[in-house]
Amino acid sequence: MNTEKYLVRPDKPIRISDLDPNDSSEFEGKKKAGQAALKELNKEIEELQELLYAEGKKRLLVVLQAMDTGGKDGTIRAVFEGVNPQGVRVASFKVPTWLELAHDYLWRIHSQTPRKGEIVIFNRSHYEDVLAVRVLNLMPEEVWSKRYQHIREFERLLVDEGTVVLKFYLNIDLEEQARRFLARLEEPSKNWKFNPGDLDDRALWGDYMLAYEDLLNKTSTEWAPWYVIPSNKKWYRNLLIATIVRDTLVGMKMQYPAPPADLEQYYQRVLEMVQSYEEKEPEEE
Amino acid sequence: MNTEKYLVRPDKPIRISDLDPNDSSEFEGKKKAGQAALKELNKEIEELQELLYAEGKKRLLVVLQAMDTGGKDGTIRAVFEGVNPQGVRVASFKVPTWLELAHDYLWRIHSQTPRKGEIVIFNRSHYEDVLAVRVLNLMPEEVWSKRYQHIREFERLLVDEGTVVLKFYLNIDLEEQARRFLARLEEPSKNWKFNPGDLDDRALWGDYMLAYEDLLNKTSTEWAPWYVIPSNKKWYRNLLIATIVRDTLVGMKMQYPAPPADLEQYYQRVLEMVQSYEEKEPEEE
Repeated sequence: MNTEKYLVRPDKPIRISDLDPNDSSEFEGKKKAGQAALKELNKEIEELQELLYAEGKKRLLVVLQAMDTGGKDGTIRAVFEGVNPQGVRVASFKVPTWLELAHDYLWRIHSQTPRKGEIVIFNRSHYEDVLAVRVLNLMPEEVWSKRYQHIREFERLLVDEGTVVLKFYLNIDLEEQARRFLARLEEPSKNWKFNPGDLDDRALWGDYMLAYEDLLNKTSTEWAPWYVIPSNKKWYRNLLIATIVRDTLVGMKMQYPAPPADLEQYYQRVLEMVQSYEEKEPEEE
Repeated sequence: MNTEKYLVRPDKPIRISDLDPNDSSEFEGKKKAGQAALKELNKEIEELQELLYAEGKKRLLVVLQAMDTGGKDGTIRAVFEGVNPQGVRVASFKVPTWLELAHDYLWRIHSQTPRKGEIVIFNRSHYEDVLAVRVLNLMPEEVWSKRYQHIREFERLLVDEGTVVLKFYLNIDLEEQARRFLARLEEPSKNWKFNPGDLDDRALWGDYMLAYEDLLNKTSTEWAPWYVIPSNKKWYRNLLIATIVRDTLVGMKMQYPAPPADLEQYYQRVLEMVQSYEEKEPEEE
């Protein structure tokens, strides 16, 4: 798959309306084949995460942004299925607490960045701070317009200090959103996810798209680029993101830590230990 | 399965040497059947966790303690396989940082307890603070002997304020530990997990068992009881713990939040929205 096609190049601004949320052109098969391919990627990601954790030197930050029902939760589940929960942490940024509001908007973000050996997924992120505040006029332009630079430079810091940053905008359209709202309303166990206020945002869809477009163009950098992921088809969204995550982890060229010196000596010692127990069948695992 | 058999009753002290780490008597089948049963439990736990998260009122804390190779990591993976990483967090307590050491030993523990709707798994815990410090004489008895009461009362606080606390001691024997060390030494990608220092602890096994026995008897309370899980057989360990976690979640009697009032009205509105788009097949999920 040519995933580069979905990159926002720093020197080449995109328009969201030019990008097809239904696109699935980089995969030859259909849904079933795509899901099977995802299973293989899940296994690879699982092994690569184990290696990242074992090496304990590098960090991976995955940022997910989308409109309501865009599929952030579903992506997290599908892409990181089976990965050891010990090495992957999800940070969800909701309405800020008073303590968070008492600091600058990057304070709570910074505190959740990954430590060495860890993958952290941001479910929403600092990018919310240039979205609703702008569309709903909650802050003067003078305040939010300065934030693009803060964010670029904040991410530069993370990357310079050894974190790899991947950013995904899950691109769905109004029609798909309506279908997904309907699914929430039809299925009793999903009703709780439906928030009537979400319908109001539909009226502001165009404004949100402009805010997203601006954000994507202003903060897609060489060190922390954005991908716009066509997301009407969930299977394609998952496959694309899993491919990029896998490729990124491979590119981080991690290695298992060297075994202890005298490994052979320890091996002999433990082997004798095991043999010293009365001969019997090894326990089933 | 009668899981109560593995409870440490506050009024009935146990001796670890009386408990068989090879026991698998509460399950009629063998390994294969046990693994199949686990898959079913995984699905139930996945759904129950979704409900816990949706309701957003209760909290579950799972404490795992064991000797080296006891299977804490494997338990986490096996029992919480497939659960949404967003609602489950693993807190690993390793060598304390200077900031942690600058506070009392429960400070770092308290900060990691679950929030509403969350499951947190402690991979090691505050119980380490009555183990090595005692066995290796790192602190005077006067210091560590007071901690059992601190811990009982700390857990009482958590439970009184709405957290359910489950504590599992994964019981393996010296022979099984030797086998597991050997497995780490035989498999190159596992070599990094082998720490020669771990062999030294084997010489102190008896002292550790006494320290565990004391801890289990002193801190198994009505509100936060200990289970001693026979853990030589990994499949049985996983099955037992998954059963207890499932039963505990069921017992928490959670409910999905009430849907918004006027659900029917919103349903009609969204249905019309969807119908207004030109008639076409719904996108594949």
